[in-house]
Amino acid sequence: METTIESLEWRYATKRMTEKKLSDDQLEGILNSIQLTATSNGLQPFTILVVEDEQVKRKIAPVAFNQPQILESSHLLIFAAWTKISPDRIDTYFKQVTEERNLTPNALSDYADRLKKNFGGMTSEAQFQWASKQAYIALGTAMIAAAEAKIDTTPMEGFIPEKIDEIFDFKSQNLGSTALLALGFRDIENDPMASVKKVRRSKENLFIRI
Amino acid sequence: METTIESLEWRYATKRMTEKKLSDDQLEGILNSIQLTATSNGLQPFTILVVEDEQVKRKIAPVAFNQPQILESSHLLIFAAWTKISPDRIDTYFKQVTEERNLTPNALSDYADRLKKNFGGMTSEAQFQWASKQAYIALGTAMIAAAEAKIDTTPMEGFIPEKIDEIFDFKSQNLGSTALLALGFRDIENDPMASVKKVRRSKENLFIRI
Repeated sequence: METTIESLEWRYATKRMTEKKLSDDQLEGILNSIQLTATSNGLQPFTILVVEDEQVKRKIAPVAFNQPQILESSHLLIFAAWTKISPDRIDTYFKQVTEERNLTPNALSDYADRLKKNFGGMTSEAQFQWASKQAYIALGTAMIAAAEAKIDTTPMEGFIPEKIDEIFDFKSQNLGSTALLALGFRDIENDPMASVKKVRRSKENLFIRI
Repeated sequence: METTIESLEWRYATKRMTEKKLSDDQLEGILNSIQLTATSNGLQPFTILVVEDEQVKRKIAPVAFNQPQILESSHLLIFAAWTKISPDRIDTYFKQVTEERNLTPNALSDYADRLKKNFGGMTSEAQFQWASKQAYIALGTAMIAAAEAKIDTTPMEGFIPEKIDEIFDFKSQNLGSTALLALGFRDIENDPMASVKKVRRSKENLFIRI
């Protein structure tokens, strides 16, 4: 697991980027890692906007406290989690699984019904929080995949979700913005955080062994 | 980023494990990856129980629907997220950062005050959900680190949080169980999921490019 550890050591939440662009292969690699990310029941309950357009970034910046990475990044990912884990969405997923695994049409019906019942009994807010947690697994995966290729990232919670949702009309799509991830390259000269020591709680403090 | 992609391709949510134990180095490597995981503001708002004791696992199994991996795993990680992002916890973290980065004592006071105000304005449930999302980044990191070393994992949401919280007296520590992760080795002969095709939503469906 040396590569993962090295990637985690190398990365940091980059505050300033150089505006250098990712190559197509680099971008697709990161998107592939997100696509492959583990999620509960495999539902992948999110949509991810891949924003390269400068005009769109300029709309986002003011509702994200004008963090410079919004404009200095090569691409900005917007993680939008499902606000409803609807029967439709569950059916669509199980139809795909049934087809790709050559199962009989109703092989997964009971499983799908259990999920529908489970999510049907949750508030919309609880469904969104559940979906957001799955999106955060993908957020972390993307940071590791990027770092392995020496691509920098900035995960951001500092934005006004309602405003982002408005810009992209997320509400009507039963989506809610949950995190941003800037992709790009660190500007060592202008980013004081590029050279500071990484601080982590000690393992004695973080883990309890039983 | 080939290694990350290979790890993601190799892994699956393992349903049956062989009871083979991880080596000390393997376990420490996975814990190191969790320790290094990115979290919002670096707060690492969780405690992780590393359960190897068979008697303790036997207490957990019935409140986790007797999923066989609980007992067949080498170690079971219990991710317990903070239910309160208290001023104390924030101060402890910023004290550590201040010391390790050799900053002047009050260099980060304004930053810490902003966080205290922010979390102080959130409900306990919202604080727990926020902390849980950070724990899910760590959950995903652990799966990637493990897979790189051909160690299997099973992320599990199928358990009764209140019962796990009771077993470990989490409530009095302002913790709440949010996810389990079994670590071990796949039992290919007994796990029908070991050989099925991985299914993922298409990139056209998952990403919107702007």
